Amino acid sequence: MTAPTFHTGVGRRTGSALADALLRPRVVALVGVSDDLAKTAARPLRFLRRAGFGGTVYSVNPTRATVQGETAHPSLSALPERPDHAFILTGTDAAVAALEECGRLGVPVATILAGGFSESGAEGVERERRLREIGWSYGVRVLGPSSIGVVNVREKLVLTANAAFAEPDLPVGGVFVGSHSGSLIGALVSRGKARGVGFAGLVSVGGEVDLSVGEICAATLDDPAVTGYLLFLESMRNADTLRAFALEAAKRGKPVAAYKLGRSVEAAELAVSHTGALAGEDDVADTFLKDCGVARVESFDGLLEILLLLNRLPARPSTGVKDVRPAVGVVTTTGGGGAMAIDQLAIRGVRVVPPSADTVRRLAEAGIAAGSGRLVDLTLAGTRYDVMKAALGVMQTAPEFDLVLATVGSSARFQPDLAVKPVIDSANEHAKPLAAFVVPEAPEALLRLAAAGVPCFRTPESCGDVIAAAFARRPPRAGLEAIALSGELAEGRMIDEAEAYGLFARVGVPHAPVAVLDVDVPVPELPFAYPVVAKILHPDIAHKTDVGGVTLNIANAEGLAAAMAGIRSRVEAARPGTRVERILVQPMTRGVGEVLIGLRRDPQVGPVVMLAAGGVLTEIYRDRALRMAPVDRDTAFAMIGEVKALQALAGYRGRPAGDLAAVADALVAVSRLATLEDVTVLEAEINPLMVLGEGQGAVAVDALVRLAVPGSDDAGKQAHR
Amino acid sequence: MTAPTFHTGVGRRTGSALADALLRPRVVALVGVSDDLAKTAARPLRFLRRAGFGGTVYSVNPTRATVQGETAHPSLSALPERPDHAFILTGTDAAVAALEECGRLGVPVATILAGGFSESGAEGVERERRLREIGWSYGVRVLGPSSIGVVNVREKLVLTANAAFAEPDLPVGGVFVGSHSGSLIGALVSRGKARGVGFAGLVSVGGEVDLSVGEICAATLDDPAVTGYLLFLESMRNADTLRAFALEAAKRGKPVAAYKLGRSVEAAELAVSHTGALAGEDDVADTFLKDCGVARVESFDGLLEILLLLNRLPARPSTGVKDVRPAVGVVTTTGGGGAMAIDQLAIRGVRVVPPSADTVRRLAEAGIAAGSGRLVDLTLAGTRYDVMKAALGVMQTAPEFDLVLATVGSSARFQPDLAVKPVIDSANEHAKPLAAFVVPEAPEALLRLAAAGVPCFRTPESCGDVIAAAFARRPPRAGLEAIALSGELAEGRMIDEAEAYGLFARVGVPHAPVAVLDVDVPVPELPFAYPVVAKILHPDIAHKTDVGGVTLNIANAEGLAAAMAGIRSRVEAARPGTRVERILVQPMTRGVGEVLIGLRRDPQVGPVVMLAAGGVLTEIYRDRALRMAPVDRDTAFAMIGEVKALQALAGYRGRPAGDLAAVADALVAVSRLATLEDVTVLEAEINPLMVLGEGQGAVAVDALVRLAVPGSDDAGKQAHR
Repeated sequence: MTAPTFHTGVGRRTGSALADALLRPRVVALVGVSDDLAKTAARPLRFLRRAGFGGTVYSVNPTRATVQGETAHPSLSALPERPDHAFILTGTDAAVAALEECGRLGVPVATILAGGFSESGAEGVERERRLREIGWSYGVRVLGPSSIGVVNVREKLVLTANAAFAEPDLPVGGVFVGSHSGSLIGALVSRGKARGVGFAGLVSVGGEVDLSVGEICAATLDDPAVTGYLLFLESMRNADTLRAFALEAAKRGKPVAAYKLGRSVEAAELAVSHTGALAGEDDVADTFLKDCGVARVESFDGLLEILLLLNRLPARPSTGVKDVRPAVGVVTTTGGGGAMAIDQLAIRGVRVVPPSADTVRRLAEAGIAAGSGRLVDLTLAGTRYDVMKAALGVMQTAPEFDLVLATVGSSARFQPDLAVKPVIDSANEHAKPLAAFVVPEAPEALLRLAAAGVPCFRTPESCGDVIAAAFARRPPRAGLEAIALSGELAEGRMIDEAEAYGLFARVGVPHAPVAVLDVDVPVPELPFAYPVVAKILHPDIAHKTDVGGVTLNIANAEGLAAAMAGIRSRVEAARPGTRVERILVQPMTRGVGEVLIGLRRDPQVGPVVMLAAGGVLTEIYRDRALRMAPVDRDTAFAMIGEVKALQALAGYRGRPAGDLAAVADALVAVSRLATLEDVTVLEAEINPLMVLGEGQGAVAVDALVRLAVPGSDDAGKQAHR
Repeated sequence: MTAPTFHTGVGRRTGSALADALLRPRVVALVGVSDDLAKTAARPLRFLRRAGFGGTVYSVNPTRATVQGETAHPSLSALPERPDHAFILTGTDAAVAALEECGRLGVPVATILAGGFSESGAEGVERERRLREIGWSYGVRVLGPSSIGVVNVREKLVLTANAAFAEPDLPVGGVFVGSHSGSLIGALVSRGKARGVGFAGLVSVGGEVDLSVGEICAATLDDPAVTGYLLFLESMRNADTLRAFALEAAKRGKPVAAYKLGRSVEAAELAVSHTGALAGEDDVADTFLKDCGVARVESFDGLLEILLLLNRLPARPSTGVKDVRPAVGVVTTTGGGGAMAIDQLAIRGVRVVPPSADTVRRLAEAGIAAGSGRLVDLTLAGTRYDVMKAALGVMQTAPEFDLVLATVGSSARFQPDLAVKPVIDSANEHAKPLAAFVVPEAPEALLRLAAAGVPCFRTPESCGDVIAAAFARRPPRAGLEAIALSGELAEGRMIDEAEAYGLFARVGVPHAPVAVLDVDVPVPELPFAYPVVAKILHPDIAHKTDVGGVTLNIANAEGLAAAMAGIRSRVEAARPGTRVERILVQPMTRGVGEVLIGLRRDPQVGPVVMLAAGGVLTEIYRDRALRMAPVDRDTAFAMIGEVKALQALAGYRGRPAGDLAAVADALVAVSRLATLEDVTVLEAEINPLMVLGEGQGAVAVDALVRLAVPGSDDAGKQAHR
């Protein structure tokens, strides 16, 4: 056999060069393609031929001269030219060998269908390490393993083994899909087709040994044919590339929406066993996506419905304490349908407001009696084009609404064209977003609305979900790209409470006065008045109460001496081997309430700041607000607004109000611990921050900090670029 | 004009005689039917003719000799025979006159399309009173006003003005729909048709001036063609007939499911303005429906999907403290699809459990490697009939599952018959319920599953919703029918705290010892030890703290005297005109926690007992459990399990556990206040019930009771039949 005629050792492709080889290959090789049409490995050839792919497709099969009636080549090396993209359809071990051959031959991109890697025990982990090594050493980019393939609809590149792509007439459009799940790209295509969603491309990333959802999507950002992104995520792995992509997409005004599994612990566990990824907490993932400007839907229908709305509704910056939530106005021809939509919006916290007096007057001028409620119910009159059109025009030009929702009744089923015409015409005439909920089964009406670019919903639930998710979308927070994500976490060490106060003071969090006493020395005069609290001071003891290390309400020096002795004996009994040497003393502080502020470096998404009300109930209700750190004051106020329990500190039912501005300041300060240059804070917590009355501030009365041990890993060193 | 040839003054029809005239009329009159096909009032004639209704249809129109090419009669009196059912399509005033004519002629049922009654101010209220009067005095049963009509699909009685019934080939089946919304019966027919749901009948009840959803549905219970009921509810008006129907349906094993608007305050308000009904609290409505054995779905798709599951999954009695929630096993060919379903089940509190070791072994014997997680993922192998069939058979016979869910992938789209065959065959072979979530767009597969009676879901969200709602369905609680609903509430009067303790003691709720002192008399020796609490005792003062009426932690008699004087002066200052004469004194009681127990006679659904943790946070989180009163001990334990905050009293994270059995006993006792014969308790509250340590009981330390003033209304008198 002669040496191949093509060059080896090309550079590692990135950006649009990557997109070219991955999604617009001129030459494709199918390694291990099967002649047996019942087999999964037969599908890509069948699909490519049926779709009429215009490039060259080589079949590689060492055991057959022909496959599906075409010439087969015994190996990649035997091909007459170098493929741009090899789809490796073999079993696990053969796939590793085939990838190495790709590397030697300089194939820029290889996609691996087989599983059996990091999700399959130690041997699998070793095989995956080998994939990574081959990829890096030869510069071949790897999609997978466990990737069901890629599809570029315009190029008719149906390079996938997903049975769903037997679909004739794949719908062409601007939507690009990146998915952790291979089967879901098929479900999205079939469901999208039924709803008029057209796709530019779909990629199943599998195990992301090299190419991640983020990098692939980013590589397509310059493609004018791609107008928006849908992500199906199982976990937050490779959050760095995802963030880089999302920030860049936001700059270019290309909307990104995500459906993420793992709202339940049960599903989060599945993601772990399925791909070997770490399962993060769902609300941490949620804040990461929102901080990156990604709209997250909770419903599967909603994922296919949201991009049309995002195209028309810009991301809305959080305006902190002054924040007024956006509002929806609802016009209907069917009272029941309108009420269903309002119910689903309102339970998701979307404001549905009635037309203002001025709008009611303008509606009346147009011959429409709006009534006095939240719903502008045109009744049967609204099935007339001119009535509906006039009503929508008035509503879309009314300043009290940020979005107008039209619910369309039975006529959508029998006269789809007529029923949706006023909605389409009005949507095109006015800048304010107009969306439609179609009450009957009316697939034609939905298709016409979608074709005209009008956001439309098949169920009241997806209507509520999509509008809530679109309203919740924020522009990416400034400065986010400067914060490194954690990757592997550094080794940590606790510092003691007194040191922790010092660190918090450095970023500007006030704390209660502190005296550190030696247990072996008589109690000195304190720099503050009794009553006081005494606490064990020891870097190894985080949960002081559990070991009897705290005494409250000490009235005088004798009491303090006794308390110190008591703490020593209890702690040393509870923790044999621990020597109690120092006791931290503070004045008893009373506030009108308390909160918990924490900072944690999440292994997947980096530093996250948390606000919660203290106490066991807020833990039971999991009532907390999260953001990627650092945060500014507006963001801090927005967080305060999200913690339900903090209503009790905002003057709820005549209760004394707390100094929430001081809470906001403390949040901002704690979040800045994530940006310190000289130390890497892995975890910091003030629990509680005692909140005093309005204008009186807030003080930390307990503190816990874990720092990275310098040099213990890359994350520690690279944390601040 | 000659006198009509038919008799007047027939009796008021009920039960099957009502159903005959309403849904199976031999002779129908359309009063005010229009010749203009564009008009709503033209539709019923058009629909009846197109459907091929076999009975006689008379058009009544005083201004035309023919309507839509048929002879028209000038009035009801001019008809050659008495109609069984008149559909009055005129405007509001003419409708009242037409109803009176129906009455005079002895027409048994009249349906009124027009609005303009109780929702339209004082005049409308008067018009509605008139409808009621005519109905009662002549014995004519009235459907509406604002009813869009009734449909009996088998009889081809398309007696409706709802445009959706232009639908050709209405799907025939066993589902009967009762709806507060007229437009929604159309949406349900079109959406049901697309999903293989066949209907027996659909009724839009409008304003329910006479015939209610409950009475109409009950009238069809003996019809063997009706196999289940779907209710679309805007409020809980006429809860008495709804309950009677639901209890009877449960006895006959005919499942009832409901979609109820008003989860949000906003939509609840709409129901008020729409129909003039009172808006109740949604969770009160929810407990009423559940206690009546009705399954409530939260999603619109779910309403059409749930009956197939209810047919196979019997209602499950609450087993109180020993309760083990039912469990689902999931089999999939697509990891992503299975994970979506599990996520949606788990966030709704449905247990998804992995196969037991024995089941894993049996799967292995069938050649299936189940792995170790919650998901039995057959991967591509599962698209083979024998593999899927074998897996389902093993799962359906495994004792750890109460229901098996199969998720069906891409093959459902291209080979719908093959893809669903193993599911249908296995569903028919085994008794344990099997349901299917279809991941791609695959309407054919869904239709085939439905035709075979296999519960199937179009989205992961409706899958989670329906399974959760079906698992939450309970048999109606015994004795429920003996409790009268309230109707108009009686006038109430508060009794003082000491009297309230007496009433609570009578049903068995322990309270802290009590001494009632006269403020003008020196403090006597108390029958219990100090420290004590002193409280103003006055029937008019419910919120004692607000007026300075409470002093805690009083150490001795001097302190008590001072406290009593202080309370008197503060209360008399805060409430000029009130004379403080008596003070209630109790020992200070400390528990490990506290709860609030309340009983309230809801104006729509009758006596409801509530359990909540005390304090402002549980109010903010609205964390409470409700049941129709009275409750038994098992139900009380189930309620305790529903209040999240009470985890803190169940030994959460090493905290001291409270005597939850005593809480259950107190709940049972308080709920019995609803059944007292000699007094009608309108409202009763223990706030707090102090919960002592395990085995130590619980004591009421504050109490509030409002009794009905005897004879102040019918409800007071009829409350206990």
